[in-house]
Amino acid sequence: MGIIVQKFGGTSVGSAERILHVADRVIQEMENGNQVVVVVSAMGKSTDQLVELANQITSKPSKREMDMLLATGEQVTISLLTMALQNKGYDAISFTGWQAGIETEEQHSNARITNINPAKIKAELDKGRIVVVAGFQGASSAGQITTLGRGGSDTTAVAIAASLNADKCDIYTDVTGVFTTDPRVVKEARKLEAISYDEMLELANLGAGVLHPRAVEFAKNYQIPLEVRSSMEDERGTIVEEETSMEQNLVVKGIAFEDQVTKVSVLGLPNELTTLSTIFTTLANHNLNVDIIIQSTTNDKKISISFSIKTSDLDDTLKILEQHKSSLGYEHIEYETGLAKVSIVGSGMVSNPGVAANMFEVLAEQGIDVKMVSTSEIKVSTVISGEQMVTAVEALHSSFELSKEPLNV
Amino acid sequence: MGIIVQKFGGTSVGSAERILHVADRVIQEMENGNQVVVVVSAMGKSTDQLVELANQITSKPSKREMDMLLATGEQVTISLLTMALQNKGYDAISFTGWQAGIETEEQHSNARITNINPAKIKAELDKGRIVVVAGFQGASSAGQITTLGRGGSDTTAVAIAASLNADKCDIYTDVTGVFTTDPRVVKEARKLEAISYDEMLELANLGAGVLHPRAVEFAKNYQIPLEVRSSMEDERGTIVEEETSMEQNLVVKGIAFEDQVTKVSVLGLPNELTTLSTIFTTLANHNLNVDIIIQSTTNDKKISISFSIKTSDLDDTLKILEQHKSSLGYEHIEYETGLAKVSIVGSGMVSNPGVAANMFEVLAEQGIDVKMVSTSEIKVSTVISGEQMVTAVEALHSSFELSKEPLNV
Repeated sequence: MGIIVQKFGGTSVGSAERILHVADRVIQEMENGNQVVVVVSAMGKSTDQLVELANQITSKPSKREMDMLLATGEQVTISLLTMALQNKGYDAISFTGWQAGIETEEQHSNARITNINPAKIKAELDKGRIVVVAGFQGASSAGQITTLGRGGSDTTAVAIAASLNADKCDIYTDVTGVFTTDPRVVKEARKLEAISYDEMLELANLGAGVLHPRAVEFAKNYQIPLEVRSSMEDERGTIVEEETSMEQNLVVKGIAFEDQVTKVSVLGLPNELTTLSTIFTTLANHNLNVDIIIQSTTNDKKISISFSIKTSDLDDTLKILEQHKSSLGYEHIEYETGLAKVSIVGSGMVSNPGVAANMFEVLAEQGIDVKMVSTSEIKVSTVISGEQMVTAVEALHSSFELSKEPLNV
Repeated sequence: MGIIVQKFGGTSVGSAERILHVADRVIQEMENGNQVVVVVSAMGKSTDQLVELANQITSKPSKREMDMLLATGEQVTISLLTMALQNKGYDAISFTGWQAGIETEEQHSNARITNINPAKIKAELDKGRIVVVAGFQGASSAGQITTLGRGGSDTTAVAIAASLNADKCDIYTDVTGVFTTDPRVVKEARKLEAISYDEMLELANLGAGVLHPRAVEFAKNYQIPLEVRSSMEDERGTIVEEETSMEQNLVVKGIAFEDQVTKVSVLGLPNELTTLSTIFTTLANHNLNVDIIIQSTTNDKKISISFSIKTSDLDDTLKILEQHKSSLGYEHIEYETGLAKVSIVGSGMVSNPGVAANMFEVLAEQGIDVKMVSTSEIKVSTVISGEQMVTAVEALHSSFELSKEPLNV
């Protein structure tokens, strides 16, 4: 008998009917002889409705009160799912974040979990009960209700799995697994049988959106195997674990991409040790996230820095740079909107030199100009024209043969 | 500087607009130089919506999970009201029932408050903050979320007022105070300036519906003056306190009434010491509330018992009596539906004999047959035909001169 943690997202619990369906998935795992903990998100659009209600009161709600408001969303789902399980004849009990022993920093709207005390969950599991826990929320040691920010329910599920030393954590979502690239864009996209934590982290960070990076980090740190699978269809999903025995012959595992990228160049900066830290600290202080950074030296006295940002952050970025023009000491600013980022990811790259060169070759064959490059041990990211994004992804997907089933060795 | 507890019901906080209006009422009390604690109910119809959601899952939700579900209603209101206060420039903080230190029995759906630890509320008041507390809910010492049943938010407000030794507890509602009778039925009904706890308790129990009896009991035990007043209009309400200096020249203070009453007679019961307890314990065990009870002895061996119930409980009552026919040992059952209960209440009755006789006289003048009577020191209740209810109330209201302003002495 093992311990399984299952997580169901907002779409999966979006209506009473879907909650009853989720109950069946939970019961199935119970009937397989496992102890089951279920982590759920707020129902479908209920979080949006709560946000809308707050907006009717004030355009600037305090983060503490927003957490208080949003935390009700998951509390509704846990009670309904528990009722559904009980109605089907199974013993079940619901816990809010604080009741489940999920302790966080007192940092509203984006708290990190500091500790999980699984005693209450364990006691209920040992009574033969299914335990249903509210995702996305916890409480500080002073008893303040907090929320975990985007992807918080994934993090809750993995953290509980770690604290219980669970055998597996299943992330049920509205797709059937992790794909080589977005199947809505590239119809040859193939579902992967397995992927490593590091590869998943790169894909998650690159905007593949299936799993939240914080949840993947947590799973990697505590070595909890994850399975990303569909709550609607009963088929195997994608296993995320340390070393993948399957699919190991693939050098490139997946292609991530996102548009609405802008390249900003700050020209004629003083060539000093503190220039880089000053400029990016200034932006970070205003919550502006910078992605790829490139530095070029023009001469001994002057350097230029280019970086990519989300286009939605452009106005704020330009304003901040303008405000700090004298302290930063640059000459002028250029920017280019309408760009996209396309990345290839695969842990096999470390031992396969030339993968980046292959990528550039494929892009060049398509007449695609690479405007920025960034590499890590397991990924290569390029910034290109947004209009050429889909062409690039399709060409790379085909060239690296990602739609081909791997040999099972 | 005093401590004021204000309670706003579901209608008063039914929309974002109304919550902003409530915030103004709270701020007004703050600006009067008081420390203010606000207790709120769930927004308008939101409790009904949550119940409907549960009904889509199961017709028999467990009470624990129902409490978990319903407790989200007030949590939404406290966060929104706190945002509204903050947005208007006032420092405020919200607390759920458990955060506010409201400890209850572990009795779901109808828990009694066992203890209030006001330390957290006090600490926030002393920081100059307005404290907004979720009504209707608490937590057991084991950390289970409970709800207090009907009128629970009134009870929360009064209990907090008692624990803080508050100067006053204002119950804001959708009427402007306590009336001599229901102004929707008798247009001469007059708002009372003051009423005693005991009179209010009788009126509350008799279905006047303005204040919950449990809240009035709590206020009486801890001698907290209440004021029932309108959240919409800025006028004085009705004071509820131990001894009323105003309106003391009135013998009868108010008239309560309700229809949908049924009289059930159980005939030919054995004349034994345990007969009464057996029959009413049997009904109580099935959650059937009996109101007026009349016992008549037919002869040494046989007695008959009549009692009044809500007509909605008739089917269940007849079923239970039928099931227990052999153990109860009665001969047969008669019942009469379509009845109403009309009661006069006033603490002056104790020292004014003949008030009951006056009442019967008035009813007789109207040709109204009295089918059952029940009296206490401060009230007389009669069961009459439902069709004659309004006539009876109007005649009594006029005869006891309830629409006349009292002399202020």
